[in-house]
Amino acid sequence: ERAGKPEAVFAEGKSVEDLVKIVKRFIEEGKSTLVTRLSREQIEALKSFEEVKINERGRIAIVGKPVSAKAGKVAILTAGTSDIPVAEEAAVTAEFLGLEVLRFYDVGVAGLHRIVEPVKRIREENVDSAIVVAGMEGALPSVIAGLVDVPVIAVPTSVGYGVNLGGITTLFAMLQSCSSGVAVVNIDNGFGAAVFAALISRVKRKAAGED
Amino acid sequence: ERAGKPEAVFAEGKSVEDLVKIVKRFIEEGKSTLVTRLSREQIEALKSFEEVKINERGRIAIVGKPVSAKAGKVAILTAGTSDIPVAEEAAVTAEFLGLEVLRFYDVGVAGLHRIVEPVKRIREENVDSAIVVAGMEGALPSVIAGLVDVPVIAVPTSVGYGVNLGGITTLFAMLQSCSSGVAVVNIDNGFGAAVFAALISRVKRKAAGED
Amino acid sequence: ERAGKPEAVFAEGKSVEDLVKIVKRFIEEGKSTLVTRLSREQIEALKSFEEVKINERGRIAIVGKPVSAKAGKVAILTAGTSDIPVAEEAAVTAEFLGLEVLRFYDVGVAGLHRIVEPVKRIREENVDSAIVVAGMEGALPSVIAGLVDVPVIAVPTSVGYGVNLGGITTLFAMLQSCSSGVAVVNIDNGFGAAVFAALISRVKRKAAGED
Amino acid sequence: ERAGKPEAVFAEGKSVEDLVKIVKRFIEEGKSTLVTRLSREQIEALKSFEEVKINERGRIAIVGKPVSAKAGKVAILTAGTSDIPVAEEAAVTAEFLGLEVLRFYDVGVAGLHRIVEPVKRIREENVDSAIVVAGMEGALPSVIAGLVDVPVIAVPTSVGYGVNLGGITTLFAMLQSCSSGVAVVNIDNGFGAAVFAALISRVKRKAAGED
Amino acid sequence: ERAGKPEAVFAEGKSVEDLVKIVKRFIEEGKSTLVTRLSREQIEALKSFEEVKINERGRIAIVGKPVSAKAGKVAILTAGTSDIPVAEEAAVTAEFLGLEVLRFYDVGVAGLHRIVEPVKRIREENVDSAIVVAGMEGALPSVIAGLVDVPVIAVPTSVGYGVNLGGITTLFAMLQSCSSGVAVVNIDNGFGAAVFAALISRVKRKAAGED
Amino acid sequence: ERAGKPEAVFAEGKSVEDLVKIVKRFIEEGKSTLVTRLSREQIEALKSFEEVKINERGRIAIVGKPVSAKAGKVAILTAGTSDIPVAEEAAVTAEFLGLEVLRFYDVGVAGLHRIVEPVKRIREENVDSAIVVAGMEGALPSVIAGLVDVPVIAVPTSVGYGVNLGGITTLFAMLQSCSSGVAVVNIDNGFGAAVFAALISRVKRKAAGED
Amino acid sequence: ERAGKPEAVFAEGKSVEDLVKIVKRFIEEGKSTLVTRLSREQIEALKSFEEVKINERGRIAIVGKPVSAKAGKVAILTAGTSDIPVAEEAAVTAEFLGLEVLRFYDVGVAGLHRIVEPVKRIREENVDSAIVVAGMEGALPSVIAGLVDVPVIAVPTSVGYGVNLGGITTLFAMLQSCSSGVAVVNIDNGFGAAVFAALISRVKRKAAGED
Amino acid sequence: ERAGKPEAVFAEGKSVEDLVKIVKRFIEEGKSTLVTRLSREQIEALKSFEEVKINERGRIAIVGKPVSAKAGKVAILTAGTSDIPVAEEAAVTAEFLGLEVLRFYDVGVAGLHRIVEPVKRIREENVDSAIVVAGMEGALPSVIAGLVDVPVIAVPTSVGYGVNLGGITTLFAMLQSCSSGVAVVNIDNGFGAAVFAALISRVKRKAAGED
Ligand SMILES: Nc1ncnc2c1ncn2[C@@H]1O[C@H](COP(=O)(O)O)[C@@H](O)[C@H]1O
Ligand SMILES: Nc1ncnc2c1ncn2[C@@H]1O[C@H](COP(=O)(O)O)[C@@H](O)[C@H]1O
Ligand SMILES: Nc1ncnc2c1ncn2[C@@H]1O[C@H](COP(=O)(O)O)[C@@H](O)[C@H]1O
Ligand SMILES: Nc1ncnc2c1ncn2[C@@H]1O[C@H](COP(=O)(O)O)[C@@H](O)[C@H]1O
Ligand SMILES: [Mg+2]
Ligand SMILES: [Mg+2]
Ligand SMILES: [Mg+2]
Ligand SMILES: [Mg+2]
Ligand SMILES: [Mg+2]
Ligand SMILES: [Mg+2]
Ligand SMILES: [Mg+2]
Ligand SMILES: [Mg+2]
Repeated sequence: ERAGKPEAVFAEGKSVEDLVKIVKRFIEEGKSTLVTRLSREQIEALKSFEEVKINERGRIAIVGKPVSAKAGKVAILTAGTSDIPVAEEAAVTAEFLGLEVLRFYDVGVAGLHRIVEPVKRIREENVDSAIVVAGMEGALPSVIAGLVDVPVIAVPTSVGYGVNLGGITTLFAMLQSCSSGVAVVNIDNGFGAAVFAALISRVKRKAAGED
Repeated sequence: ERAGKPEAVFAEGKSVEDLVKIVKRFIEEGKSTLVTRLSREQIEALKSFEEVKINERGRIAIVGKPVSAKAGKVAILTAGTSDIPVAEEAAVTAEFLGLEVLRFYDVGVAGLHRIVEPVKRIREENVDSAIVVAGMEGALPSVIAGLVDVPVIAVPTSVGYGVNLGGITTLFAMLQSCSSGVAVVNIDNGFGAAVFAALISRVKRKAAGED
Repeated sequence: ERAGKPEAVFAEGKSVEDLVKIVKRFIEEGKSTLVTRLSREQIEALKSFEEVKINERGRIAIVGKPVSAKAGKVAILTAGTSDIPVAEEAAVTAEFLGLEVLRFYDVGVAGLHRIVEPVKRIREENVDSAIVVAGMEGALPSVIAGLVDVPVIAVPTSVGYGVNLGGITTLFAMLQSCSSGVAVVNIDNGFGAAVFAALISRVKRKAAGED
Repeated sequence: ERAGKPEAVFAEGKSVEDLVKIVKRFIEEGKSTLVTRLSREQIEALKSFEEVKINERGRIAIVGKPVSAKAGKVAILTAGTSDIPVAEEAAVTAEFLGLEVLRFYDVGVAGLHRIVEPVKRIREENVDSAIVVAGMEGALPSVIAGLVDVPVIAVPTSVGYGVNLGGITTLFAMLQSCSSGVAVVNIDNGFGAAVFAALISRVKRKAAGED
Repeated sequence: ERAGKPEAVFAEGKSVEDLVKIVKRFIEEGKSTLVTRLSREQIEALKSFEEVKINERGRIAIVGKPVSAKAGKVAILTAGTSDIPVAEEAAVTAEFLGLEVLRFYDVGVAGLHRIVEPVKRIREENVDSAIVVAGMEGALPSVIAGLVDVPVIAVPTSVGYGVNLGGITTLFAMLQSCSSGVAVVNIDNGFGAAVFAALISRVKRKAAGED
Repeated sequence: ERAGKPEAVFAEGKSVEDLVKIVKRFIEEGKSTLVTRLSREQIEALKSFEEVKINERGRIAIVGKPVSAKAGKVAILTAGTSDIPVAEEAAVTAEFLGLEVLRFYDVGVAGLHRIVEPVKRIREENVDSAIVVAGMEGALPSVIAGLVDVPVIAVPTSVGYGVNLGGITTLFAMLQSCSSGVAVVNIDNGFGAAVFAALISRVKRKAAGED
Repeated sequence: ERAGKPEAVFAEGKSVEDLVKIVKRFIEEGKSTLVTRLSREQIEALKSFEEVKINERGRIAIVGKPVSAKAGKVAILTAGTSDIPVAEEAAVTAEFLGLEVLRFYDVGVAGLHRIVEPVKRIREENVDSAIVVAGMEGALPSVIAGLVDVPVIAVPTSVGYGVNLGGITTLFAMLQSCSSGVAVVNIDNGFGAAVFAALISRVKRKAAGED
Repeated sequence: ERAGKPEAVFAEGKSVEDLVKIVKRFIEEGKSTLVTRLSREQIEALKSFEEVKINERGRIAIVGKPVSAKAGKVAILTAGTSDIPVAEEAAVTAEFLGLEVLRFYDVGVAGLHRIVEPVKRIREENVDSAIVVAGMEGALPSVIAGLVDVPVIAVPTSVGYGVNLGGITTLFAMLQSCSSGVAVVNIDNGFGAAVFAALISRVKRKAAGED
């Protein structure tokens, strides 16, 4: 297995039957996994399994036991309330990988005063990295990156209308941000952002001889 | 003639000969006009005319006399130094239309402290509108709009590389800005932004019975 | 609070429960707000609140009391009947902000004679700005701007098929309009156009010492 | 040979040597042809041939004798002066095919009064079709089509900047025009528009038993 | 009224109530009109009116009496069977405008032998123009144009998958066709193609002193 | 080494010095290679090496000895003369790999009679596959595929203007071709098409126990 | 009939009635055909015909008898489990054309060890070509092509989200693959890939005098 | 100053005079900075300054003294030789920020054996992160990420042709990579990748109490 990287099943487009079969296999073999991008229907089908813990807002489930060790700390911020599902996918994945998660939701730049608190806590609480989830407000990651000194992982979301183009505009705005210290993952990919954050924390633990 | 809207010649793509012929006609008829988007070569050809006043950085020229009356006040801001040519196109147009121009260049969000001064002056000096010119930093107009109470006219520039797409990304980022009080003109269109600013000042003068 | 800019909730993508919770909070705190881009289902849920006034065509609701002062005057035009919902979003927002609204619907350029009346009234009735809402007919704003001397705020709509591309073609046609005196907001963003119009009227009132 | 359709050589991308060789072959065989989209260099090389008649502005040349018969009448309009080269490509092609050409250049919608004259002449002078060439002003063909009763062939040009996208925006604006009676050819394709106009005139002549 | 151009209502996006109201007005005023792009639901609502004649496949209805005079002749071809609805929209419009229609459906280039018959009839039966409707097979219009000497009006359809992009690929393939004598209308716009065909036939009738 | 796949150097974007260094290394080690997409300047620099054989039109060079065995037979067709450079890249690569090449250039569908000869020879001369190179005429591969029974490898070229989009339109038109028996490689990739053709011939030789 | 190319009906967009009518005609005339891209509803309607054999996962049906002769061998690989429906469309088509099919599903590059087995079998079992079906993992075809010496036919699928763009990203990634020996068909076009594979096997059989 | 983030001047689009003026100011004030994306001409102008150290291949210069402390270790890999300029921009930036750099150039997936060495060294030499620079081979970052357990920062380059779209295709292929542990920066942005790598190393040093 690839160190530090979780097993994961991509549920989107799979039939309920196929998904249940795959999940059962994991349970029988006593292996843990994440199941991402669940539909309403798939969520209902997984509710009967006691080995499965579902986060409905994040459309993500944990099968089996997560990693137990305290592996590091990550801050997860969203610009709006509509970005929260993607942030929850990131949060569940991060916790599954042993990270402590600080959530700061709906702190978009329209109200700059709302970012004071998360910036203060990121600076003071020994956070290893920040995941910034934003839809219509592509500017948030670079504003945050200008105020903290940890790596910022930006997650564009597909929230918006008109010129939003399903998140492409936000993705591009994030990528061309002048402010440095930002890297980006795919649109709505909270899962990938959290895996990346866990790898950053791991660099630290290795240096400290903990991994 | 359309009230408050300047005559303007679009120089791009015209041969030097055609352009000189058009400019001569304006001079002979004693009419004023702007000439926009001049090439290096066209600028050289126009230098011999004393009736023509050229702003090389803004690639724009005034033929004949500008409007004399003090018509209002506009602030023009740029995010970077590379955005200045477009800002100068706007400034020359605004001055041609009788506006007083406050210039604040290279005040991009990467250094938020640099916007303190322009915001203060916009608030205190009776400015009617703000033109915000930005390339890689599409966020600047909405940040400014969040701090002042005049209309903000955003001008995306084609400065950038990679996902910038000749300014389309910046344009779209500006259009989907959550912060309200922003409207947008075409990429690199400093001319159009200034004409719009002059119309806003005109609303005020009409109310005051000055126009 | 930012002067002249309304509080607003973006309903799209929010669950009915979340939206109701947010609206209740506004009511309890005695604060006013607009709620935009409501779905059919969300509209039904809000009908039970007497503090909420819904405009179904514009998919927009007012929670609490609008601004009372007469703040200025705006004309709102649409090219076709399919553009009316976006125009109504603008109209409700403008009225919420204290503007008087003149509505001229279905006056598209296919029948140039239909624009005679609105142009005449804009010229004679002391209107501060015009909002022009158009889908397949991107030419309307520049035609209007060529005939009046107030700022024209163009709102492209996503009405159309084939090469319309969800409104992008109309947006681009508006942005490249040769005729000056036009600025543009996001596709279907009647709300943003009205806020911008209110800021223009405010420039006038400030000059008159009324604000 | 296909009736009514001219032989034509597409010069773009061909080496000067290859082009000269092809032209010589036509001269030797005593056949007529058009050569389109010539570069500055190619034009110089063709100047030595007395059988070749070059229109430099339209970047097009006639090799040999054009069709002599009076085949019909077409009006060619441009929105701006920058659209004239494409209009000349159309005009030379039309004349090569025996059509009489009425030219109306720089009559864009920004100045609606300028279209009065061409519309009057199209109505009164027995014109079979109108070719409308426009860059930044995609609205012109549908405005014209609303005022005349002959088929309008729209030619978008690549003149413009920013959101113009090399003419795609203008092309799409023309295609989605509400006003009916318009059909479109490729960007900058003056040649194709004229061939189409000649076919329309041919329908008439056939009915009159002239072809 | 604009000569030769039908009154038409664009049904898409209109509520059933609004549409019925509009149609009733036409009936009361004794005026004829076409209603295009009808939804299943709208079609049901219009079935009760005896003055309305519906073509379900073409999603188009005639309200009132069509033009009676024999105005000319048009051939309508489709590449596949899936392109037939758009062809029917064109056919109903053409008949409404007094044209005689020759239908040749499912004659795509994959089976070149199938185009022998329509080409023969276009040549022999005094047809004024050909409308060629095609989805995945953008080549058909230029193949036809290479074999007949009447103007060919190409209508791209949105039939296809993968790189089809809702018809844009087919539209572009048609526009860049080397073969001349083709002009194009918007994707799925059978209506516009038929209006254009009627204008071509009108040129002929005018020459013959019939119009 | 990968069986049947040539070593190849991609010259584009490499400095002349770097390229010469790489080529010298191949010569010293006695190894053969192709060098593709050479610039004018790079071609001049390689002319001094006697081990290098350059095809200027195809912008391709062979360093060292090609494969000697007769490996199979491929037909290479182009729609226009501007497509010949890409066809030559394919032809040189195919010959380097031991294939016999039948060239049929400028046989585009505008003149359907010109494809009679190549189709006849493909059928009669034991050809294993056909490479069809086309720019503005994306229809050619599927027309050919409808007439022969060997696999057709389509190569879109970037020749064209307007909606051509650097070859993307032609690529997409080829991919959505209804006619089956066609597969596609990257725009202008004559090299890749020839390698693919060699692999097809190789399947045959293996079956015959020759490889 | 075109040798080696199956008759096929494209079911998408056809009404159930039309489709049943077409299928009945084939049965009555005793002819075989494939029916591709069936909807859930169309599948139900075809179940009553005993002459029709449906593969539900591949949304494809065989009407009548397939080709019986053993025509060659093809390997079909998928990157993920979500790519299997497209692979099944290819497999059914290949079998219909007489090919023996080796299926290797869910062998994506995320787990490189999983490709050992299919590569070994392709090398050892006299396979003529490989069809590689992949959605988010556009790299798989070139990785496979680097390890085997048969032609690789790549089929991008529309599986994915965010920047996937309905499969365009995967298509483009496959086309620009550095590794040679790959050609591509349209997104989700398993049918076309199989027809192409059958033509490759046919080249071999012809050489062996079997066809 | 923002901790760990270098001062940097973006040279692209600046006049030589402006750039020299900016650089002189840094020298006079005794401050260090990077100057990125230098043109040939700008490089020549900076050569006269002894305080400026230029890396011509990477088009990047250091003005003044870099950070001296050993801050961590980063591996930089490229797929091809054409990607090296972007890698050098990253390497110079990383060294400026005090990182030790391991360079592994031209190790693209076409020759999988070439990645064995870099993967081994990344695992054994206490590397904190890997920057993977690739143009036509978007798959390399995810292949590397599947073999190492440090964060992988992917840098798409604009090297390529045809469907490459100036690097957008590679960018998108990297973003949709199934393999996790990858984050992406803008096309050609070696500078940003190195700043991000320095921040990762900084997390480690802070944990070790070194920063
Ligand atoms: N939300 C997600 N976004 C991107 N990749 C994912 C996601 N969830 C799972 N994956 C990856 O998808 C693959 C599983 O695909 P599958 O075998 O089709 O279930 C693994 O490589 C996972 O790491
Ligand atoms: N920089 C500019 N951007 C957009 N439109 C312009 C610009 N400069 C001039 N124009 C307009 O272009 C038209 C003149 O075009 P032309 O007749 O080609 O010189 C007038 O309508 C001007 O208002
Ligand atoms: N899945 C498919 N993808 C592409 N073309 C197809 C497909 N299935 C059938 N076709 C082609 O579509 C045409 C049949 O279209 P139709 O006449 O509308 O049924 C034939 O040329 C078939 O070869
Ligand atoms: N290669 C680069 N890519 C992206 N941003 C850069 C690059 N080089 C410098 N910058 C940023 O560009 C800004 C400097 O812009 P300017 O004031 O126009 O020189 C600073 O925020 C830098 O961090
Ligand atoms: Mg909020
Ligand atoms: Mg700066
Ligand atoms: Mg109307
Ligand atoms: Mg003009
Ligand atoms: Mg068919
Ligand atoms: Mg030719
Ligand atoms: Mg899998
Ligand atoms: Mg290499």
